[in-house]
Amino acid sequence: MRFEHETLAQRVCFAPGDAPAAVRAEVERLGGSRAMVIAARSVAGLDEKVTAQVPVAVRHDEVVMHVPVASAERARAVAASHEVDLLVSVGGGSTTGLAKAVALTSGLPIVAVPTTYAGSEATSVWGLTEGTRKTTGVDARVLPRSIVYDATLTLSLPVAMSVASGLNALAHCVDSLWAPRTDPVDQALAGEGIRALAAGLPTVVTDPTGLEGRERVLYGAYLSAVAFSSAGSGLHHKICHVLGGAYDLPHAQTHAIVLPYVLAFNAPAAPEAERRIAEAFGAASAVEGLQRLRRAVDAPEALRDHGFDEADIDDAVRAILEVVPANNPRPVARHDLRRLLRAAWHGADPSSQQ
Amino acid sequence: MRFEHETLAQRVCFAPGDAPAAVRAEVERLGGSRAMVIAARSVAGLDEKVTAQVPVAVRHDEVVMHVPVASAERARAVAASHEVDLLVSVGGGSTTGLAKAVALTSGLPIVAVPTTYAGSEATSVWGLTEGTRKTTGVDARVLPRSIVYDATLTLSLPVAMSVASGLNALAHCVDSLWAPRTDPVDQALAGEGIRALAAGLPTVVTDPTGLEGRERVLYGAYLSAVAFSSAGSGLHHKICHVLGGAYDLPHAQTHAIVLPYVLAFNAPAAPEAERRIAEAFGAASAVEGLQRLRRAVDAPEALRDHGFDEADIDDAVRAILEVVPANNPRPVARHDLRRLLRAAWHGADPSSQQ
Repeated sequence: MRFEHETLAQRVCFAPGDAPAAVRAEVERLGGSRAMVIAARSVAGLDEKVTAQVPVAVRHDEVVMHVPVASAERARAVAASHEVDLLVSVGGGSTTGLAKAVALTSGLPIVAVPTTYAGSEATSVWGLTEGTRKTTGVDARVLPRSIVYDATLTLSLPVAMSVASGLNALAHCVDSLWAPRTDPVDQALAGEGIRALAAGLPTVVTDPTGLEGRERVLYGAYLSAVAFSSAGSGLHHKICHVLGGAYDLPHAQTHAIVLPYVLAFNAPAAPEAERRIAEAFGAASAVEGLQRLRRAVDAPEALRDHGFDEADIDDAVRAILEVVPANNPRPVARHDLRRLLRAAWHGADPSSQQ
Repeated sequence: MRFEHETLAQRVCFAPGDAPAAVRAEVERLGGSRAMVIAARSVAGLDEKVTAQVPVAVRHDEVVMHVPVASAERARAVAASHEVDLLVSVGGGSTTGLAKAVALTSGLPIVAVPTTYAGSEATSVWGLTEGTRKTTGVDARVLPRSIVYDATLTLSLPVAMSVASGLNALAHCVDSLWAPRTDPVDQALAGEGIRALAAGLPTVVTDPTGLEGRERVLYGAYLSAVAFSSAGSGLHHKICHVLGGAYDLPHAQTHAIVLPYVLAFNAPAAPEAERRIAEAFGAASAVEGLQRLRRAVDAPEALRDHGFDEADIDDAVRAILEVVPANNPRPVARHDLRRLLRAAWHGADPSSQQ
């Protein structure tokens, strides 16, 4: 048992239906008197409701995916010219990301109010893009001081997007169990995250307007982000990163499809991960539990249905081989990856790739 | 799902056999150049080994149980007169407690190197005594910035004390599941703590000079402290506090004896706690798992063997009734407590109290 674990300081408030009061309490706690509220136009007034009890100096709605540098610069200028002393972000990953970009240079504290399951609010990772070049980094200043989770804010997230985003969070949990910096604390949180997502996602599907499923998925997504940002990217994320980057496959679907194949490949060599995942799913085996969940939420099944060309498999295998984490529980050979990607392309039974 | 959880910033290093290098790395990370090393004479040179690679300005060995104010004042004066910029504590709860007392007024960062399973190193709780009056408080400044756990440092802890201290940690975990401020994050960490303690304690008993069991118990004790300091004292700790305070019963033994009776009382009304505990023990029920562990480590069984007079039960019941947590999963009536204490006095089968 040899590891280092860094716990990040953060207040997390689960306040279903009560975001306005909870956000006010957090702003007061942080001594904020001139808040900059960051929210995309698409959240359509949700941010005004959520920040109704907060002293707002300025509202900023220029939110762009992947946080372009120019957009970050404009937001920073707005914060400076309005003498802002605190940031409130209301939205998904791009909105939180813009608040982080402002905090990175200003040190302003962030109260994050997520409306999706992106998880960025629970990490100290920031990202900026200039043209097609993405720069990311880790800085304690960008970690939101408080998060307010209010599941009612996620009710407008369509079921299909909820499922895709929730399965992405599940992939964070699973990959955390064997990622390069994984440790027992990450693993405990990831196991708890899987449990919450496995219970919550089917409920979101059967009762999309109910709070119960959405609360659990929010909670699972929070844990997945905490575990993943500590543990780093494992084999699953390396594969999906190559597929998404080089072949422009849709992010969430790619994760949802690839996960069972990586799990079926790694699990026999990772008994502790196998045990934790199976137990979290309440299933006889990890793969069985994952597949049961995937069926319950009607998850996408084959890469061929999402724009991946079978002829690109060998190319992809070459690119993935270069980024396989050294600590993966099982050595990863060219033929392993070829078999894995072929099975994922067909949507074959994951166990059959062995 | 409505809760607030505050995660405290801390680096935790598990470095079996490598405390000297790990402590040096943490001191460097914190920019310490004049360390005050706090360690009781009883650790007999262990602190010199552990801090051999650290720039030490002064060593202080006046460590007294419960941190008397006068002793804290002397330690603070030593820190000031030696222009110390960092504290390294090497020892058990009293040693960590003294370092916290110095940090409380000076703000100096602490690197804590625990040699027992006390858990104080993972909390922001401080305590001072003046005569018989104990004052405690919570202050972010006293939370050690880094902990270095090296199981080789616990090898000199006798088996009986290891078991008592480990069962005390187990009681923290169990009580965290229904304590006043309990939340799902506390519960996940407590469940993981139970798992580690249940696996580690029997191994410490069968192989006291091996590292495996001691590592696990250290890890479990760390988690128990994190969960308990967030969740607060539940029924079990309220009972033990009354018994220890008014009747001078031995702390660790009291906890070890009382726990199964509180568990048997609460579990039927706390299905989530029951499920987590049973699962962590890998047992059919929570009580069964706890009793199996208690048998494996030869835990003390009856309060009558540890100085508690049967005639005091009614008095104790009155005192406990005043401090029962309002959120206890089950209402606690006078006759419940009487039955519970009588069973614990006899060392009867916990299930029989129902």
